[in-house]
Amino acid sequence: MRARIRATRRDGALGTGGEFGGLFRLAGYRDPVIVSSIDGVGTKTRVALLAGRARQAGADIVAHGANDVLCQGAAPLFMLDYVASSRLEPAVIAETIEGIADACAAQGITLLGGETAEMPEVYARGELDVVGCTVGAVERDALITGAQIRHGDAVVGLASDGLHTNGYTLARAALLPRGPHAAIRQALNRRLPGLGETVGDALLRPHRPYARPVLGLRRRVAVHGIAHITGGGLPNNVARILPEGCRAVLSRNRWPVPPVFAVIQRRGRATDEEMLRTFNMGLGLVLIVPPGSADTAVRLLERAGERAWVVGEIISGPRSVDIRA
Amino acid sequence: MRARIRATRRDGALGTGGEFGGLFRLAGYRDPVIVSSIDGVGTKTRVALLAGRARQAGADIVAHGANDVLCQGAAPLFMLDYVASSRLEPAVIAETIEGIADACAAQGITLLGGETAEMPEVYARGELDVVGCTVGAVERDALITGAQIRHGDAVVGLASDGLHTNGYTLARAALLPRGPHAAIRQALNRRLPGLGETVGDALLRPHRPYARPVLGLRRRVAVHGIAHITGGGLPNNVARILPEGCRAVLSRNRWPVPPVFAVIQRRGRATDEEMLRTFNMGLGLVLIVPPGSADTAVRLLERAGERAWVVGEIISGPRSVDIRA
Repeated sequence: MRARIRATRRDGALGTGGEFGGLFRLAGYRDPVIVSSIDGVGTKTRVALLAGRARQAGADIVAHGANDVLCQGAAPLFMLDYVASSRLEPAVIAETIEGIADACAAQGITLLGGETAEMPEVYARGELDVVGCTVGAVERDALITGAQIRHGDAVVGLASDGLHTNGYTLARAALLPRGPHAAIRQALNRRLPGLGETVGDALLRPHRPYARPVLGLRRRVAVHGIAHITGGGLPNNVARILPEGCRAVLSRNRWPVPPVFAVIQRRGRATDEEMLRTFNMGLGLVLIVPPGSADTAVRLLERAGERAWVVGEIISGPRSVDIRA
Repeated sequence: MRARIRATRRDGALGTGGEFGGLFRLAGYRDPVIVSSIDGVGTKTRVALLAGRARQAGADIVAHGANDVLCQGAAPLFMLDYVASSRLEPAVIAETIEGIADACAAQGITLLGGETAEMPEVYARGELDVVGCTVGAVERDALITGAQIRHGDAVVGLASDGLHTNGYTLARAALLPRGPHAAIRQALNRRLPGLGETVGDALLRPHRPYARPVLGLRRRVAVHGIAHITGGGLPNNVARILPEGCRAVLSRNRWPVPPVFAVIQRRGRATDEEMLRTFNMGLGLVLIVPPGSADTAVRLLERAGERAWVVGEIISGPRSVDIRA
């Protein structure tokens, strides 16, 4: 585990790792803005534990945090993790932290510090919470706030890999029995009609990290806004970055909605509205770019290994998101 | 709550607070090193909740994180919090976050972001975990690593305010019944012989923040090392900052051990060794300073409102901490 953590150290990481505070030298910036985000994996962790894939919960928190700081145009630099449970089962904790470390290494993020806590009275038996704080930086004049978004701009969507880390309460209610654990494990191995994979595989697809392709794109194309599609779905997360007087209009037929969402909707008897406000519905990240750059952006993102589509545009109107069929 | 959070915004905080990543401009540094730490309040939170003082758990995490980044010489700039529980009881969550915000405001730290999570299956009923990630900065050439510590240096201890956030498993076992909650609440209101206050007051004294007096001291006196006395007590935490070939020798009669520790030891039948490795025993922070500066350091710290003592010195020997009677 220690070796895996050491392998995440990149330019900037100082010290031995045994300090009270983790050290990261912020070199090469003229006027740096630090961008940071904290979040937990939520109840996707439960699914991962039941499936015996604690590593997954670790990887998810890394992508989640990195995508959050990316929304402001920042490159994720380092993160700190907090893993707490009722009892520290060494194998499960080690797997979780290795999952974090390996995802950090793959994404060029230093795992700079962390804490584990054992609190049998606070956590339900066998349960685990995985929290990550991600810190990135960006030049102040390259900060993305959404203020530059204007009428006519194009909305580009990047494909998600399944649910990422949101909507697990609804998804679990739709696809998994309430218990006991053996019954849930059995359900995770089922292949539901239309899903094309087991329920476990569908629910545990890793949260996709977008920082590298999008920071790469930015060197070629102006990006006016970035929204990470997490809890609240497209309507709420795209609205967060719109300036007053800007309305985003998205057409749902412009991108393919992965089958897992139809299966969840049918089995969970959820309304379209509920689905849109709970899940990413196939778009993990949304970019707002000048109209003339939309096709170039899609082409460059595809070249970087992403699937991307022009899914809508910005029009004049009250600050809102309109998703049409 | 929102107003309390807004009140923590200080120079450097950018944006509206609604961004995916919190924004902090790092201005005025030539060669900045970011110093960061993540930690939870641990089971002190349980005592705070039972006593109806959720605010306390919030305040504790702020001081804990700020003291951690201080150990590397950094000024704490901002923090992010994560508050998770079985059910989000709005009043308790609001009180916890207000506790965090008010402590941040008092210490000049921006509460830059945060997340709350409700996970009934992960947390035991009514339980809460409070996690904070603290970020500070220091000029690279002013970084404190302990490497400058040398034979003859003096060890200066700063008074703690009770247990801070460590040793609650042992303390609770010694001073509180195992349950039910009503019995624990009754025990929290008891005045044990020798304690001079109720058990609840003794256990819930806030973690003392040291950043302001110690950063102030540093402008006048060279500081070679700083150790935050948390889990592991004086022996482990002072050892963390010693370079090879340096041994810290502390004399226990040089500072007053607060009565709460004697009461815990007696009732918990703990050995001296166990007490020293579990609790701060009256010293919340330890500084290593050049021998000629020790008295000045104590005087300046006292002038800043701290109680401080020269508690030992650094001698030649294997990297270790020796605490004598």
